[in-house]
Amino acid sequence: MGFAIAQSNLQIMMQLTKIKLYDLAGAEENRRFSPNCWRVRLALLHKGLPFEAIPWRFTEKETIAFSGQGKVPVIVDNEEVIYDSWAIAQYLEESYPEYPSLFGGEIGKSLSRFVTDWVEAVLNPEIVRLVITDIYSHLHEKDKDYFRQTREKAFGATLEAISADREQRVITFGNSLTPLRRTLQHQTFLAGQTPAWADYVVFSSFQWARCISSFPLLAADDPVYRWRDQMFNIFDGEARKVLAYQS
Amino acid sequence: MGFAIAQSNLQIMMQLTKIKLYDLAGAEENRRFSPNCWRVRLALLHKGLPFEAIPWRFTEKETIAFSGQGKVPVIVDNEEVIYDSWAIAQYLEESYPEYPSLFGGEIGKSLSRFVTDWVEAVLNPEIVRLVITDIYSHLHEKDKDYFRQTREKAFGATLEAISADREQRVITFGNSLTPLRRTLQHQTFLAGQTPAWADYVVFSSFQWARCISSFPLLAADDPVYRWRDQMFNIFDGEARKVLAYQS
Repeated sequence: MGFAIAQSNLQIMMQLTKIKLYDLAGAEENRRFSPNCWRVRLALLHKGLPFEAIPWRFTEKETIAFSGQGKVPVIVDNEEVIYDSWAIAQYLEESYPEYPSLFGGEIGKSLSRFVTDWVEAVLNPEIVRLVITDIYSHLHEKDKDYFRQTREKAFGATLEAISADREQRVITFGNSLTPLRRTLQHQTFLAGQTPAWADYVVFSSFQWARCISSFPLLAADDPVYRWRDQMFNIFDGEARKVLAYQS
Repeated sequence: MGFAIAQSNLQIMMQLTKIKLYDLAGAEENRRFSPNCWRVRLALLHKGLPFEAIPWRFTEKETIAFSGQGKVPVIVDNEEVIYDSWAIAQYLEESYPEYPSLFGGEIGKSLSRFVTDWVEAVLNPEIVRLVITDIYSHLHEKDKDYFRQTREKAFGATLEAISADREQRVITFGNSLTPLRRTLQHQTFLAGQTPAWADYVVFSSFQWARCISSFPLLAADDPVYRWRDQMFNIFDGEARKVLAYQS
C-alpha cells in the first residue's frame, strides 16, 4: 500500500516534470517531419529527459502564441518556454548539466554551432529543393495554402519548378557532403565514439526528407549512408520506427 | 658563477627539448607560406612549447627522408618523428596534456576533425586556384619546375589557366564561407572565447594566401575579415609580423 502510494506519487511527479515539445505534424498526426523538431527530440532522448511531443500544424499560430513567436520547435519545461532548436539545446545543456552532455564543453559547443551553421547554410537549402513538392503533398489540408504561398514567395518560383531538376541537383547535394563524408571515414560519429548534438543536427535533415519523400538522397555505399544507418539504431531505433519512407 | 652555470644548463636543457619543425620556405628563407605548416606553428604556440622552424623547400626530399615520406610539416620531438598536420596536432595533445588543449576533449577533437575536413574539401581547393601563380612566383628557383609540373598535371591545366578567372572565382569562394561567417556572428572565435585548433586550421589557409599574394580574399566588412584580424593579434602578433602582403 505504502509502495503503491509512493509509485503513484512518483508518476505524478514525473508527469509534472515532463517537457512539452510542440512538434510539426503532417496530414497524419504521427507524421513528424520537421528537421528542427527532430534535433530537439534527439537532444531530449540524449539527455534522457521525459517529454511529450504535441502535434502542431503550420497554421496553428495561436497554439504557440504564448512563446511570443509562431514557429516550432517550442518546449515548455515547467515555467520555462524556449523556442529555436539551438536555444533549446543550450537551455537543456545548462539546465541539466548532470545528464549526458550534448556538446562536451566550451570548444565542443562552439564547434557544434559551426556544424549547425553548415547544415543550415549548405545542407538544408539543397534538401528543401529536392523534396519541397513531397513536403507539400504530406501536409494537412489546412496548411497547404499557407505553405505554398510562403515558400513560392520566398523562392520566387512554384513548388513544382523548385524541385523540377532534382535528378541533377542531388548530384550537387552529394558533393556538398564531402567534408562530412571525409570525417566519417575517420570516426564512427561526427562527435566521436558516440553521437551528440552535431550528429543530431545533421541527421535531422536526412530524417526530414525521409519522413515525407521516397526520393533517395544517399547511395548505399556512401559513408554518410552507413552513418545514417547507425543513427537509426540509437535510442531503441526511435528515428527508424516512425512513419517515414524507406529512402 | 653558480647562477651562470645554472642558466647555461637550463639553456642546454631547453635546446635539447626544442621541437624541430620542417617548414616550407619560398625564394626568401623567411617566406613561410605552407598552410599545413602554419597550423602546426600555431598549435606549438598554443601549447607554449619551444620550437625551431627549419626552412625547407619542395625539392629537398632527402632532408626529410628520415620521416618515411616527402612532405612537410614534419616535427621531431626528441626521438619522435611525426608528419601530417592532423597527426601532429593529435600527438601534441596526447603528449602534452598539461598544456592548453587544442581540442577541449573528445567531442571537440572530433568536431575539429570536421572543421579540418571542411577546410581541405571546400576552402583550400578554392584558395589554391586563386593564388597558384602567386605561389609559383614566390618559390625558390630550384622548386619552380617541380611545382609547375606536379600542379599542372594534377589540375590538367597550366598554372596561368587555373587562376585566369579569379575575379569571378573569389565570389564563389566568398559564398563558400557562409557557415563560418554565420558562426563568427555568434562568437569571437570558432572554438569560442579563445582560439584553438579549429581556428588555426581555417586561419592558416588565409595566411597561406597572404604570405604569397596581394590578391584580396576578404572584404573589410566581412565577419571573417574581422576574425582574421583578431587572429593576427594572438601570440604577440606572430602571424601578422611575418614576411607577407597586406591583403
